Amino acid sequence: MNKIGNYRFVAEPFHVDFTGRLTLGVLGNHLLNCAGFHATERGFGMATLNEDNYTWVLSRLAIEMDEMPRQYEDFSVQTWVENVYRLFTDRNFAVVDKDGRRIGYARSVWAMINMSTRRPVDLLEMHGGSITDYICDEPCPIEKPSRIKVKSTETACTLRARYSDIDVNGHVNSIRYIEHILDLFPLDFYRTRRVRRFEIAYVAESYYGDLLSFYIDEEEDGRYAVEIRKKGTEGEEPVCRASVTFV
Amino acid sequence: MNKIGNYRFVAEPFHVDFTGRLTLGVLGNHLLNCAGFHATERGFGMATLNEDNYTWVLSRLAIEMDEMPRQYEDFSVQTWVENVYRLFTDRNFAVVDKDGRRIGYARSVWAMINMSTRRPVDLLEMHGGSITDYICDEPCPIEKPSRIKVKSTETACTLRARYSDIDVNGHVNSIRYIEHILDLFPLDFYRTRRVRRFEIAYVAESYYGDLLSFYIDEEEDGRYAVEIRKKGTEGEEPVCRASVTFV
Repeated sequence: MNKIGNYRFVAEPFHVDFTGRLTLGVLGNHLLNCAGFHATERGFGMATLNEDNYTWVLSRLAIEMDEMPRQYEDFSVQTWVENVYRLFTDRNFAVVDKDGRRIGYARSVWAMINMSTRRPVDLLEMHGGSITDYICDEPCPIEKPSRIKVKSTETACTLRARYSDIDVNGHVNSIRYIEHILDLFPLDFYRTRRVRRFEIAYVAESYYGDLLSFYIDEEEDGRYAVEIRKKGTEGEEPVCRASVTFV
Repeated sequence: MNKIGNYRFVAEPFHVDFTGRLTLGVLGNHLLNCAGFHATERGFGMATLNEDNYTWVLSRLAIEMDEMPRQYEDFSVQTWVENVYRLFTDRNFAVVDKDGRRIGYARSVWAMINMSTRRPVDLLEMHGGSITDYICDEPCPIEKPSRIKVKSTETACTLRARYSDIDVNGHVNSIRYIEHILDLFPLDFYRTRRVRRFEIAYVAESYYGDLLSFYIDEEEDGRYAVEIRKKGTEGEEPVCRASVTFV
């Protein structure tokens, strides 16, 4: 079986923003679905794992786009495994436009956990390490996810996690954080610029009813660092950190 | 060409709620896409119309479900034109589960407008009334959209329309209203009950930055009436009205 998965999509009307381009949240959703399809087809997908009481957990995601597909345009997503370590695996993506041109890339980092203990699993031991058979040296010419730090102590916005934020695991879903973070910026940002790179590191889960506070630092070259925190028993604790670069 | 369009889907992981069932917002999105596919295949879709400076406007939508597809399940949507009047057309839908069983239906009412004048178009005159060739008497055994009235004068919630709410026409998109309305109800509602019927009537457009106020009346038999209003130059004006029935 080919090491690279290839999946076709079309940019649907409710999946584009006011500029008529696919939203980053929807693209992120497609990427994570492709990760699932690719893994399932090769015997290490969620459904198989769930039976064995294991699940994949997304740790980091970085997306960098030269441009976004326009409304009604076909595009496809390619995905492959770049590396497998004991506790993490790197999965990369390329986004290919209707003419076969690569218009962007993404990198993701995943861990596998035991759902009873919530402890990470040794990937090199899972299924005799067979996941390593799919390692592939396809190029992914974007930077790896970086370490994001936010200094601001002033809340830019707060919101309470609601019904539509919650996924089947009872957590605020990974894509909703992306949408909420992009909603921090005024519409004019998107009118005159576009998001060139978006990265996010998932630190802890949040749940229905959690009050999420958003902190934001403006950095150089159109880059913004964002941290989402939730109220915990001992003050606020980080839920995720993101970096958004506008060009 | 067959009068009934048929389109296949799968319930993706980020498209199900915490109970593992497809969300109503995503189903609504699929329905509206199917309306678009069906119309386009028959020569009266958005793209064709846009060239002629016309566009479809969704006026009402009612969805009634016996059950929702589960995560990873295949399902399909059938759609057809029930009636064409001078200013409106009725389009119906059936949702078919993986075993070919109809698990729900939807009704929608559309107008066509001239994009320059924003005035409605006479559908019986458009393209020589050729849309009437597709009228079909397939049964749709759910009630037509009703007239919804909200008496409450107390705001249940307010929110400001943000980047992710806005579609390519610069309006808050039809699906986002559905999601915001369902977010009015606590998670426990969805744990112990489910939405049997959802209807919405779109009254006026809202835009980026608009402050949307939500008013809600509890009626009988698990039914709630919701109105969204926006601040206008002369006080608040209605944007849309919905009725949500839990069973």
